[in-house]
Amino acid sequence: MTSLLETIREPLDLRKFSLPQLEQLAAEIRDVLCNLIACRSAHFASNLGVVELCLALHQAFDFRTDRLIWDTGHQIYPHKLVTGRFAQFHTMRTKGGLMGYPNPAESEYDLFMTGHAGASVSTALGLASGDAFLRPQENRYTVAVIGDGAFPSGVVFEALNNGRRQSEKLLVVLNDNCMSICPRVGGMGDYLDRLRMNPAYTGLKGEIVKLLNHVPLLGDPAERFLVQLKEAAKAGLSGGMMFEDLGFRYVGPIDGHNIAILRKYLRMVQRIKGPVLLHVVTEKGHGYRPAAEDPVTYHAPPQFERQDDKYVIVKKKSSPAYTSVASQAILDAMRADGRVTVLTAAMCQGNKLESVRDEIPERFFDTGICEAHTVAFAAGQAKAGMRPIVDIYSTFLQRAYDHIFQEVALQNLPVTFMLDRGGLAGPDGPTHHGVFDFGYLRVLPNMAVMAPGDASDLPAMLDFALKFDGPCAIRYPKATAVTVARQTSPIELGRSEVLRKGGDGCLVVCGALVDRAVKAAEKLRDEGLEVGVINARFLKPLDAEVIVAAVRDCPWVVTIEEAALMGGFGSAVLEAAADAGVDASRVRRLGIPDRFIEHGERDELLADLGLDVEGIVRTCAALASPVRGLERLRSS
Amino acid sequence: MTSLLETIREPLDLRKFSLPQLEQLAAEIRDVLCNLIACRSAHFASNLGVVELCLALHQAFDFRTDRLIWDTGHQIYPHKLVTGRFAQFHTMRTKGGLMGYPNPAESEYDLFMTGHAGASVSTALGLASGDAFLRPQENRYTVAVIGDGAFPSGVVFEALNNGRRQSEKLLVVLNDNCMSICPRVGGMGDYLDRLRMNPAYTGLKGEIVKLLNHVPLLGDPAERFLVQLKEAAKAGLSGGMMFEDLGFRYVGPIDGHNIAILRKYLRMVQRIKGPVLLHVVTEKGHGYRPAAEDPVTYHAPPQFERQDDKYVIVKKKSSPAYTSVASQAILDAMRADGRVTVLTAAMCQGNKLESVRDEIPERFFDTGICEAHTVAFAAGQAKAGMRPIVDIYSTFLQRAYDHIFQEVALQNLPVTFMLDRGGLAGPDGPTHHGVFDFGYLRVLPNMAVMAPGDASDLPAMLDFALKFDGPCAIRYPKATAVTVARQTSPIELGRSEVLRKGGDGCLVVCGALVDRAVKAAEKLRDEGLEVGVINARFLKPLDAEVIVAAVRDCPWVVTIEEAALMGGFGSAVLEAAADAGVDASRVRRLGIPDRFIEHGERDELLADLGLDVEGIVRTCAALASPVRGLERLRSS
Repeated sequence: MTSLLETIREPLDLRKFSLPQLEQLAAEIRDVLCNLIACRSAHFASNLGVVELCLALHQAFDFRTDRLIWDTGHQIYPHKLVTGRFAQFHTMRTKGGLMGYPNPAESEYDLFMTGHAGASVSTALGLASGDAFLRPQENRYTVAVIGDGAFPSGVVFEALNNGRRQSEKLLVVLNDNCMSICPRVGGMGDYLDRLRMNPAYTGLKGEIVKLLNHVPLLGDPAERFLVQLKEAAKAGLSGGMMFEDLGFRYVGPIDGHNIAILRKYLRMVQRIKGPVLLHVVTEKGHGYRPAAEDPVTYHAPPQFERQDDKYVIVKKKSSPAYTSVASQAILDAMRADGRVTVLTAAMCQGNKLESVRDEIPERFFDTGICEAHTVAFAAGQAKAGMRPIVDIYSTFLQRAYDHIFQEVALQNLPVTFMLDRGGLAGPDGPTHHGVFDFGYLRVLPNMAVMAPGDASDLPAMLDFALKFDGPCAIRYPKATAVTVARQTSPIELGRSEVLRKGGDGCLVVCGALVDRAVKAAEKLRDEGLEVGVINARFLKPLDAEVIVAAVRDCPWVVTIEEAALMGGFGSAVLEAAADAGVDASRVRRLGIPDRFIEHGERDELLADLGLDVEGIVRTCAALASPVRGLERLRSS
Repeated sequence: MTSLLETIREPLDLRKFSLPQLEQLAAEIRDVLCNLIACRSAHFASNLGVVELCLALHQAFDFRTDRLIWDTGHQIYPHKLVTGRFAQFHTMRTKGGLMGYPNPAESEYDLFMTGHAGASVSTALGLASGDAFLRPQENRYTVAVIGDGAFPSGVVFEALNNGRRQSEKLLVVLNDNCMSICPRVGGMGDYLDRLRMNPAYTGLKGEIVKLLNHVPLLGDPAERFLVQLKEAAKAGLSGGMMFEDLGFRYVGPIDGHNIAILRKYLRMVQRIKGPVLLHVVTEKGHGYRPAAEDPVTYHAPPQFERQDDKYVIVKKKSSPAYTSVASQAILDAMRADGRVTVLTAAMCQGNKLESVRDEIPERFFDTGICEAHTVAFAAGQAKAGMRPIVDIYSTFLQRAYDHIFQEVALQNLPVTFMLDRGGLAGPDGPTHHGVFDFGYLRVLPNMAVMAPGDASDLPAMLDFALKFDGPCAIRYPKATAVTVARQTSPIELGRSEVLRKGGDGCLVVCGALVDRAVKAAEKLRDEGLEVGVINARFLKPLDAEVIVAAVRDCPWVVTIEEAALMGGFGSAVLEAAADAGVDASRVRRLGIPDRFIEHGERDELLADLGLDVEGIVRTCAALASPVRGLERLRSS
């Protein structure tokens, strides 16, 4: 069988293919996706689901000038394959290789680098507005493709509500696969279910399709037909009235795996003036049975393994991650105290909360991808006397910033934030690294912010937080949980833990790089340098007493954090030193510099940033070398 | 006429009043509101609009145990008057007096201190959820009252979408006055307009009311009737199907100025299991004709003046505020360059953009209270080649934080943020002070953040931003614009402006407290102290060269900012000094301490925080006194 995929240099090449060829191409794309997952973890089921939609879109539009936004962007793989990136596809999600999300640096067909859900309709409206001003003669069409998981995000509603004004040529494709990352929740999901029950759809493979085939697709009759179809749908069940009420023309639902149907409708809607919402029904994991049957596991599965001639997912017996330590601590806390609830925003799987959900469903709340609501809802629970835990990735918590401010911090309510993926999130890249949380949380009054130095700190911090009479955040990385051997001291508000004393210098670490600091100190001892290590534990309130004493008394201090240096932990140390009138000119701050960090394995990225053991040793050696003869370590 | 109002000690007292007495009470409340506005600026028209609704709510529910949230909270005045705060009402919005928003410290009837829109439904759901766990036997009812202005905020939709699960006893009252702060926009507004056209409402004063009067209000028949009414409404136009589709029972629309009708419906909906949305139609400014006729001006009018026996609003000929300087600069920029657009989130009046809207309506975008959408939409425009200006109060921009991150900073798009109300916003208090922006913006890569030192800097900074190839923020206070006399230097990226040299110490100011610093330096010169003043202009990138040189060369440095000290400008200075290996132990940071600041006049609050001229002088004297004999200034 000839590979059609490798003949595609640009999307225009798709136009020469017949329908059977397109179907062959779809099969080839699915093979490539399966082969990728056989090599490494990546988003999978959602990509399998949009293969036909992607091909039909690139046939029906010309995205050299038309505009295409894939919301969130984890379903971008087929798009990358047909926009000139087939040859590099094997580099997907590796450092220096293709990004697992849209990336304008890779291709002009990727307009926005994304990864967070829900902004596609707003940015599409903005693009359409700009094009209307700057190049009205070009008649560009703007398309946003958004899954039903992202669809209930508040910003999508805001955009739909603002959709009418500058959108003569705007299409929102609602890719409805009945799933969020986890099974979807909420009223909108039920509504979409009812739309799919619409006779116009359930009968689609029969008469309606026949009808469609007899309708001329160009010229006014098509539009007239569409209007008739719409009226019929309205007369049926609700027929998308919700979207019509907001000013969108609703078309659908249609079968998202039938390329012919998709093309027809995509061409048809281009003739409608004003914004259109096209409801496309797809199956997450379509074309690969295990994924279609278990789309949660196959959303972003670990690397496949070959067993008995087929690929399977093998649960690795690796050391548990901080996420697992956290979810076990949450479960323990909920067992011990009936006031404790846990809230997740569609991340039951990512946060490993399945056992909580199964054991204590009544106190497990999955709000869908609605972080703002999640936080404000938690605040209401806390006000009523509950002890809610908001378990959201660090980067996604940004979506609720104003509610952390108003509903939680301002009221001084005991809401506990578990910030997973705090630090460098690895292959997901810049949209998923959780490196701004130290800065954006620390500035809010009443917030206590902790970062466990190791796995043993984490459950103790959760216990502390649930007893604390105010908001707390606990922030930990996407990494294997490590325990630093020591006589662990209890968690006390604003108290650090001195792990190691040493008169030649001191490492002050906020977060899970503590083990690297300890190893660095051991290496330095081999070189004759006695370096102290402090596990800061609290970003806020800072243990100013102990840490400022270290700044005052040690020849030098290195602060270490897996967070942005701007306004982060190191800054807090400098603030404390200045407030105490202590000279901090020999403090060096290691952390994330003021730029967005690319994707790659966390260890690779940490090494690049000098946050690995060797990097820490280098920094220490450089500080010590004027006094000691450690020049060779500086470039170790 | 006996004053009923002064006899009310608690809401239960309302129950003894007859309907005519309640109507008299409503009139008394309106008198009190008018008298207040005769004394000082306050929220007005929205309070006039909810008088009857407030009285009916307190009659129909018992909010000692039931829960009541007024969304945003600017319409809380009648509620304050009937919950024991009549005697203090004259202190409204003065320092130490009543807050213009809900305040749990004032009364147990105020559950959340708010001021930002949209979270009421989420917090109400959270309260209902907590009550269901902790006190199920009490059968508490939870009520959120939300205006149609706040209603299109994304978080409201998220909450409605999550409304079904823990809400046996939940009522959302949609207070529909056809207005946001400015005339409302968007599809939802049109939808509400259509609901009001519903025959069930337009005929309400006729047959429907008659019908209602004959229906027993307790027992199952009422519920049955309601179901019938619902079916009738569905058969009519759309009858609130959008809310029904999301899982809410829709009831209404009903007349929000008829206490009898309101009470009947409020009692009726208590018998419905599951969440109810009650659509109440009110008139913003009701009962005071000028306010009803011009609700935008009367949303929060300046203090009235008495002229010829009646109160009028007099446009004061005071010096222009920074807001006016900004809006004039925006208008000039839009006249000069057709690519420049301006976006506001329902703050056309607050941001003084009326002349822009009137002169260049096609490039003026009011998105309604939808800040997240606003920012993502601006990013789309910028990507298409436009030069959008996002003009949003500092504190409200928090609502778009994730989109500043993903859609703007990560893409490095040229979006200009004009952050009005940066600093202490005065009588609006903690929810309106814009003091966290330095911290939350500085941490994001690619962002340039400026703060004009005076009025002459502001238009120059906007010019700079519109030419800059990336995101810029310009942040200025709610204050009279001041110009510091000098030979102004042009705005250059990351360059400060040395206003005054002096070898005895140095004041480094980021923002509009520059004039106070200059005055402080003049006072200190009178005492024989030569103190330099630097107008930092850029929070980011910081002018490290000039500022670190000051830290190195001056006996002491005081950094001054009207922003949170945690992670703010002073921290940036300390970071730069440490990075350069310079001792910063004699740097003192003046700014907003790590607590929420109460309401009061900006000058009062600045004085309390040592940010007035005297406070700056005191700090300088304390630093200098070991060397110079300036002890007496320390307590000046």
